[in-house]
Amino acid sequence: MFHFLNDYSESAHPDIITAMQNAHLKQHIGYGFDEYSDRVRQRIKSQLNNKDIAIHFGITGTQANLVCIDAMLSPIDGIVACDTGHIAVNEAGAIEATGHKVILAESTQGKLTIEALKKVKLRHSFAPHVVRAKAVYISNTTELGTVYTYNELKALSDYCRSNDMYLFMDGARLGAAIAHTYSDPNERTLTIADFAELTDIFWFGGTKMGAMFGEILFIPNQKIATDFNIYLKRHGGLMAKGFLLGLQFEVLLKDDKYLELCLHANAMAKKLSDGLEHYGIKLFVPTQSNQVFATLPHDIINHMKTEFDFYEWEQVDDNNTICRLVTSWATPEKQVDRFIAKLNEYVINV
Amino acid sequence: MFHFLNDYSESAHPDIITAMQNAHLKQHIGYGFDEYSDRVRQRIKSQLNNKDIAIHFGITGTQANLVCIDAMLSPIDGIVACDTGHIAVNEAGAIEATGHKVILAESTQGKLTIEALKKVKLRHSFAPHVVRAKAVYISNTTELGTVYTYNELKALSDYCRSNDMYLFMDGARLGAAIAHTYSDPNERTLTIADFAELTDIFWFGGTKMGAMFGEILFIPNQKIATDFNIYLKRHGGLMAKGFLLGLQFEVLLKDDKYLELCLHANAMAKKLSDGLEHYGIKLFVPTQSNQVFATLPHDIINHMKTEFDFYEWEQVDDNNTICRLVTSWATPEKQVDRFIAKLNEYVINV
Amino acid sequence: MFHFLNDYSESAHPDIITAMQNAHLKQHIGYGFDEYSDRVRQRIKSQLNNKDIAIHFGITGTQANLVCIDAMLSPIDGIVACDTGHIAVNEAGAIEATGHKVILAESTQGKLTIEALKKVKLRHSFAPHVVRAKAVYISNTTELGTVYTYNELKALSDYCRSNDMYLFMDGARLGAAIAHTYSDPNERTLTIADFAELTDIFWFGGTKMGAMFGEILFIPNQKIATDFNIYLKRHGGLMAKGFLLGLQFEVLLKDDKYLELCLHANAMAKKLSDGLEHYGIKLFVPTQSNQVFATLPHDIINHMKTEFDFYEWEQVDDNNTICRLVTSWATPEKQVDRFIAKLNEYVINV
Amino acid sequence: MFHFLNDYSESAHPDIITAMQNAHLKQHIGYGFDEYSDRVRQRIKSQLNNKDIAIHFGITGTQANLVCIDAMLSPIDGIVACDTGHIAVNEAGAIEATGHKVILAESTQGKLTIEALKKVKLRHSFAPHVVRAKAVYISNTTELGTVYTYNELKALSDYCRSNDMYLFMDGARLGAAIAHTYSDPNERTLTIADFAELTDIFWFGGTKMGAMFGEILFIPNQKIATDFNIYLKRHGGLMAKGFLLGLQFEVLLKDDKYLELCLHANAMAKKLSDGLEHYGIKLFVPTQSNQVFATLPHDIINHMKTEFDFYEWEQVDDNNTICRLVTSWATPEKQVDRFIAKLNEYVINV
Repeated sequence: MFHFLNDYSESAHPDIITAMQNAHLKQHIGYGFDEYSDRVRQRIKSQLNNKDIAIHFGITGTQANLVCIDAMLSPIDGIVACDTGHIAVNEAGAIEATGHKVILAESTQGKLTIEALKKVKLRHSFAPHVVRAKAVYISNTTELGTVYTYNELKALSDYCRSNDMYLFMDGARLGAAIAHTYSDPNERTLTIADFAELTDIFWFGGTKMGAMFGEILFIPNQKIATDFNIYLKRHGGLMAKGFLLGLQFEVLLKDDKYLELCLHANAMAKKLSDGLEHYGIKLFVPTQSNQVFATLPHDIINHMKTEFDFYEWEQVDDNNTICRLVTSWATPEKQVDRFIAKLNEYVINV
Repeated sequence: MFHFLNDYSESAHPDIITAMQNAHLKQHIGYGFDEYSDRVRQRIKSQLNNKDIAIHFGITGTQANLVCIDAMLSPIDGIVACDTGHIAVNEAGAIEATGHKVILAESTQGKLTIEALKKVKLRHSFAPHVVRAKAVYISNTTELGTVYTYNELKALSDYCRSNDMYLFMDGARLGAAIAHTYSDPNERTLTIADFAELTDIFWFGGTKMGAMFGEILFIPNQKIATDFNIYLKRHGGLMAKGFLLGLQFEVLLKDDKYLELCLHANAMAKKLSDGLEHYGIKLFVPTQSNQVFATLPHDIINHMKTEFDFYEWEQVDDNNTICRLVTSWATPEKQVDRFIAKLNEYVINV
Repeated sequence: MFHFLNDYSESAHPDIITAMQNAHLKQHIGYGFDEYSDRVRQRIKSQLNNKDIAIHFGITGTQANLVCIDAMLSPIDGIVACDTGHIAVNEAGAIEATGHKVILAESTQGKLTIEALKKVKLRHSFAPHVVRAKAVYISNTTELGTVYTYNELKALSDYCRSNDMYLFMDGARLGAAIAHTYSDPNERTLTIADFAELTDIFWFGGTKMGAMFGEILFIPNQKIATDFNIYLKRHGGLMAKGFLLGLQFEVLLKDDKYLELCLHANAMAKKLSDGLEHYGIKLFVPTQSNQVFATLPHDIINHMKTEFDFYEWEQVDDNNTICRLVTSWATPEKQVDRFIAKLNEYVINV
Repeated sequence: MFHFLNDYSESAHPDIITAMQNAHLKQHIGYGFDEYSDRVRQRIKSQLNNKDIAIHFGITGTQANLVCIDAMLSPIDGIVACDTGHIAVNEAGAIEATGHKVILAESTQGKLTIEALKKVKLRHSFAPHVVRAKAVYISNTTELGTVYTYNELKALSDYCRSNDMYLFMDGARLGAAIAHTYSDPNERTLTIADFAELTDIFWFGGTKMGAMFGEILFIPNQKIATDFNIYLKRHGGLMAKGFLLGLQFEVLLKDDKYLELCLHANAMAKKLSDGLEHYGIKLFVPTQSNQVFATLPHDIINHMKTEFDFYEWEQVDDNNTICRLVTSWATPEKQVDRFIAKLNEYVINV
């Protein structure tokens, strides 16, 4: 059995384990004031125009989202998200637990469009009976694995700045998004520097791109950055051994190691996706990163599930279900090959 | 330079690193439903009378505290804590962030007494103008490194049960507390089973006893246990790679490895403490675990700080300050010996 | 100028003012423990089977909603409401401020249907990643002035009880809903006793049916009722002069005074509604209580607005807008007649 | 029987009732945008230098406190209050319900001193482990009926401005405080204009000085004032019939009617206080406003309670209890005389 259920089932890339082993008996300063974290901050800042950007570290994705939102909003503010957004559907009310409404907007292939945003903004102009629609949440890659183009991000960024709103980007799979723009010749290659210019706050996830755990939080907008680590502490997100976070990102950022890992994950997804299409399976959305959403007949699902596991996303009709297959830095190509062979086996027999 | 600042400056015991290395390319089930976590749960339950106890894993101590308190209290409830309690002074309002008042009681050597508790309870009988004093928070070891005896815990437990209150124990250094009762012939040796009988909910910290990070949360009281993992998720405390937590505690619990590590830490503190007393330094509280609180003249502090760092807790007068020295599983005995030698050097020269 | 903007623009029925005048120099007990409030509680209980029902008083509708929801939910719970529900769109995030997600369900003429509820429930079965869909919010009359039939309420009640959910009814205009069932021969006449049997908690609004301000809160379900007045206090909803609330409801409940007032309000709305239909105006929803929703051409709106004001609800196209006209216990019939005459004037001239 | 339990047992001054009667069938604009409220705002602003001051209305004191604090603090901020402060002990966790820690400082006769404030500030300099001590709460009169002098307020104001903190004043009995400064020749007479200059936000209570209910909220500091009415709405504190609040304060502010009422209340307290001292009873604090705190022997308490009720504040020893007697605008002088006569009766008989 092999599964394509998610991109967090393995522990960490061997380089991470080695770095941890090398460091394990040294005495470090606590709470993110250590040398690794500082080096990571310096390395990143050296590549950005905005030298005042605040850089912190978080542990889980839900926590990164709730801490960022708690830090950026006043009590009377809500945050706009797609109806498919992670904070809207999959975080067990973590945002509402900080007292904020998640304002739903219609999504298009997992993305928030300017049109949907305008509608929401109009509905929230009726003070004092409504919250202020003060911020916009997007995830990149989206929940459907799609990737925002530079132009789409620029349009959202411009809209937010014109309307006194913050743009917040959840980057649980930002490595995969960057890798997509790197490998697609038709798209402008995006970097951390681009996100630091276009958004007010965003984070870049380690958990799904080779780290054992952890995320880097970037806060280009000074209004949000003040005393940010108290927000982390207040939500239990400040690790005593914060050096473990800095240490891991030093490994992943060195020579763009993370990009190498994400390119592999995306390539494995592309191969899976091509294999499915080759056998006539329809994709639910185009495969742009390390997630494949495809509409599979139930017979095929049953056939495949004897050897592979994956997530059944949403039943379409009596015979078909949209399934999600996820690859990662650790996905062996031979498992992808086996998957396609197994699919071939089904097709031949039918 | 060597420091006795805290017990979380090293990464993890080598056995933990090795276990992580062994597991790092396997595919695991996410969110705490993995095989390691299950084995830890089974091992612990096999040693307890209460087979219905719920067992979960958390990441940081502040988070463990806030999640447990959020799960045990109704919105109209407050929790009683010593004025020295960690949730009262050192968690940046994390409990209030869940909407609950931390009700202060006077402390005695870091401990909550029945007398102090009764006073607080009386003040909170004036409904509907006051919160209900519904739970009691203690930490064991306390913030001053002292350890509750069985009789003290039993009295608190009885009081709580007679007054429809929950007893909650923060076990950030519970290993050190257990080790103290294990090595002191005058005290009843306490085990996880004792805490499971005396409290309604408690946690047992890994971070400060050899793990890389993580805590086990025990919920003996069924009223609090329902859907507890949603509370974790809601506060960003549910790791996708939850198997990393189960894996570490499997190592620490095997053959009571944690006890061996905590006995070492306590022994190092005792040696430091004896050394200080030998040279006429007064302890602020008796040394019972891995923390030493001693009142040091400023001249000695300056002398020692050329080679050792430690925390200046509270200035007593113009010439003296209470200092805190903390040892851990990783403290080399030779550093303790060096510290005492350095102290000797000062005394001889004066 | 006369306006049909809302049903809270006048102060209070003369009987209320008189009762306040009579009582104004007596010394009363504070915080709802006074004689008027007690008599109201006794009167109501004498008419109900459930003698253990808890009865409290609130001040504003938003506060009643947020206090009830805070009292009925655990932190990990959300409450389902129509996408048109007052708590979903018009309360400035008051429910989220208590830490709870308002889970949106599709509405049908302002009502929540079992089908919509089932869909939502299914989406919230994926613990621990989602909140528990633990309660259902409805308002009666709805935001569109429609009234739930007994059968509709019974179906919702049965569904909730089968699924371990609470049913909560916002009764800001419950008097108007009762009056509708009283005057419509095709519907079972509903009483407070019915709502006390069908729901777990509900409130009955005074503000919009002749009181100066205030609402009665009924809690048939004992699980929710404990120490409810601390919830009120915690949210600033416990009036020192709580006797002002009991006093007003004693007047309104005596000889069903409230019903007389609400029948008038509904009759005025019916007359307005019939007048509009007579001149070919289409209703957006059937007029069942004291609110009329009708789609008016912009020319007519402009004509009418020289003498009458009303709320423009939602623009339908370039030429038409859905408007809302609200009547109350204080609406003079001659103003309704003037409105229809003014409409006639327009039609004749065109 | 007559009681001196509190100053909110009668409904409202006859002028208030009359004004309500005069207005009761007019149509008003809702939510505080009515003509009365506007006239009150204009009248007050005309007397102040700060023309940008925001002025809103609230319903209850606890609500005024929680809304103001929610509006002035960031999530990571706490507010300092005396250990006797109303928000610290008598509001059922209302402030914590907004997510904020109430930081306790020692009190001196119910007042917060600069010395106590400095100690607290020092303890809260240890970021990121502590909340920011960002605001100071005082009540004037205090919980013990004492009144801050101009110099005391100026010192607190200066300290706050030097330390980037807000000064917030709860004025549930501010009328009584103003009346004290008006009638005491040794003190500078204070006005609304003084509080508007010295504080960042404060409120002026109607409930205890002749209104039926309601408070005016003043926000001199523009940083806190933005969209303040959304904060009110979010906490259920925005009355649909907000005109009832403006209407009442128009009556109370006209020709300083409130001052006349408060001078009466204070005079009655002074007479009671003098009577008690005449018979050798010791005051617990000097009587400066409409509350008397006196230490009464239990025999006297028993004797007096056959005809008068009052609050037993705190038992001092086996024979004596500190009692609180409160007067109001509605206290008849003959009841005060009767009280003193009854006391005389006891003394003669003993």
